[in-house]
Parts: sequence; structure tokens; C-alpha cells
Amino acid sequence: MRHFTADDLSNFETRYRNYLINSLSGYKSANLIGTQNVSGQTNLAVFNSVVHLGSNPALLGFILRPTTVPRHSFSNMQNTGYFSVNHIGQDMIEAAHNTSAKYPETVSEFEKTGLQPVYKTDQKVPFVEGSPVQILCRYVNNYLIEENNTRLVVGAIEEVFVQEEMLHPDGWLQLDKGNVVAINGLEGYAKTALIDRFPYARPKE
Amino acid sequence: MRHFTADDLSNFETRYRNYLINSLSGYKSANLIGTQNVSGQTNLAVFNSVVHLGSNPALLGFILRPTTVPRHSFSNMQNTGYFSVNHIGQDMIEAAHNTSAKYPETVSEFEKTGLQPVYKTDQKVPFVEGSPVQILCRYVNNYLIEENNTRLVVGAIEEVFVQEEMLHPDGWLQLDKGNVVAINGLEGYAKTALIDRFPYARPKE
Repeated sequence: MRHFTADDLSNFETRYRNYLINSLSGYKSANLIGTQNVSGQTNLAVFNSVVHLGSNPALLGFILRPTTVPRHSFSNMQNTGYFSVNHIGQDMIEAAHNTSAKYPETVSEFEKTGLQPVYKTDQKVPFVEGSPVQILCRYVNNYLIEENNTRLVVGAIEEVFVQEEMLHPDGWLQLDKGNVVAINGLEGYAKTALIDRFPYARPKE
Repeated sequence: MRHFTADDLSNFETRYRNYLINSLSGYKSANLIGTQNVSGQTNLAVFNSVVHLGSNPALLGFILRPTTVPRHSFSNMQNTGYFSVNHIGQDMIEAAHNTSAKYPETVSEFEKTGLQPVYKTDQKVPFVEGSPVQILCRYVNNYLIEENNTRLVVGAIEEVFVQEEMLHPDGWLQLDKGNVVAINGLEGYAKTALIDRFPYARPKE
């Protein structure tokens, strides 16, 4: 195996270190977060850091990079109180990735990438048409991570839309049935296939 | 599509809600966290919430459930200062899942699951033999998420071991080359295959 020491990590050229460290923690969730500002201007951004925080109350979180530059998704959800989380299907990976280009706030990533906004709830929050799992979240809180000025943003899950064929009778969603992808680093998109689903693990004698 | 409202989510039977919400946020990273206590007793636990926090300094985080019951991994890393993060390969999914059974602190999940501990650095931290990516982390901090008493634990990446065939010349790790799996909910394990790796996205005219 290749071995990198702490000295290696700090001495790497920036780009090499970014590629390595971004891909180092394993597969990530592949989500598009949709918001709009108070004037109705929509915004759509790819995120690979959405995590499960709890089931009751139903909460999720994601990591926001330092707010030293404008973060339109974050300011929108703080101002309107809501955002959508949309799973990325295999047929939308290139458009999803292109939402990461830096557009000014007056430009909607929906228009630039060809993804279609759709309004499905009473809140003024755009969802992504065709996304296999669409979640309405209420913005709840954020925690500053003082080690590098990133933030953990917390959202409450309020409404859920899922493709019928993904939903098992016991509530479990089988993600590969919706062609949901996983992200490798910041820029690799992988298709997936369930190997096995295990029962709740109990101690062995 | 199936539509669940906020009322549906709060009225579901506990097990149904847990399965649904746990699988709702998309694919998760599949990692085994290895620690030992000050007496040398090893501990190994599966986590599906490891996220990238930053590249310089190289930081990762993971979500810890409420500490209302003993969390051996957490107390060990606070006491010794270190933990290992090991990617789960296709050949170890059942053993990895079985680390989630509730064993007392005096029992090592290594012994019960058949996974082999291996010591690779100066720190007294067990890694998982055969894991395609092995990371030594220094425990840095934790943030209490007051909405549900979970915690975001922050670790600094200090040493890295990766299978040669996963490493691209620019530093990017191609996870499927190491047969790294992704987790669907708490208990589904999926194999993966890279579809495409896209360049840094730039605005379109």
C-alpha cells in the first residue's frame, strides 16, 4: 500500500492534496439543494455532505464551506426558512455537476444546466423535476466548526416524495432502484447496485 | 411518486420511520472506526456518517449518536487521542455490519467478527487488515447538536494508507478500484462503479 505521512500531507501541492483528501473519506451522498431568494430567484447547488442526524425528529445535516464568499443556498434558506434536497439520478449527473460553477446570484443554475424546477408544496421552494427522491426541509440551525470555519447546517425533514419502486413495505428505500448515484471526491459519480441488506446485528456468543 | 407529509412522518410506527428516514438522505460512506482504551482493549464500530470537512488542514467529521449509553469508540478516542478510519471493502460487509451489535466494553468486535487488527503507526490504534483505505486520525473536537443531542466529532487526518491501484497520478482515489462499498440506510451495502469523473465546473455563457 502507498503510505502518506503527516509531512507528506502538508507538503503536497494544493491540487494533489485537495483531490486526495476529498476522495479519502469514502462515497458521499449525491444531492442537489434547491432554494430561492425572497424575490423568487431560484438557486440550485450540488452537495456531497448530506448526513442523517436523527429519525425522530427527522433531521439531516450538511457541511457548508466557509462563508467568506457569498453562499446563495445558505442565505436563501435562512431568509425563506426552507430548502429542498433532491437525489441525483444517473441521467442527471453532468447537469448536477455543472451547478457547481460559480454563477452570480442573479443567474439560476436551473436555466444554465437544463434541470427543471418544479413546485410541489406550499412553500416557495423549487424541487428538481425527475429527481427520484425529493425532500422538503425547514432550515433549523447551523454550527460553526471553528477548526476551519465550515458549518454544519441542520434541517428538519417536513415532506418527502419518493419513487414508488424504491419503497419497501417496511419503509426502507432501496436507492439503486431509483438509479441514485454516489459521489467519489468532488467530481466522480458512481452507479450502485445493492449487494445485501442485513438484519439488525445482535451479539454473538 | 409517493408523498409523505409532516403528519405522516410523525405518525409512522417507529420502525417504519427509522427505516425511511435513515435511507432518505442518499448513499453514505462505509467506514470502520478502530480504537483501543488505555488498557489496550480494542474496539471496532461501523459508521456511515463520515464526511469531508476540509483539505488544509485535512479534517474529517462523523456523527455520534447521543451519549446516553456508553459510546466506546468515542471515550477511547478522547482518552488516547487517536482513532483509525478504515474503508469497508466488498469482502468484509457482513463482518463490518456485525460490529454494530451491542457488546460490552470488555469484548473486542475484532474477535467477534473475525476482522483482524493491525498496527501500522506509532500510535496504539488498530487498523483493519485488508481494508483498502486506512486513515490515522487525531481526535480534535466535538460539537453537540442540541436539536437531538447527537455530536459532530472532528478528526485531523495524520497518516494515510491506500491501495496503489486506487491512486491516480493527480492524487484522486478511485474508490471502486478498491471495491469500496456505499451504505444504503443503516443496513444495506452497495457495490459501485464509476460512471464518469468531470472537470472543475466553469460558468456557461
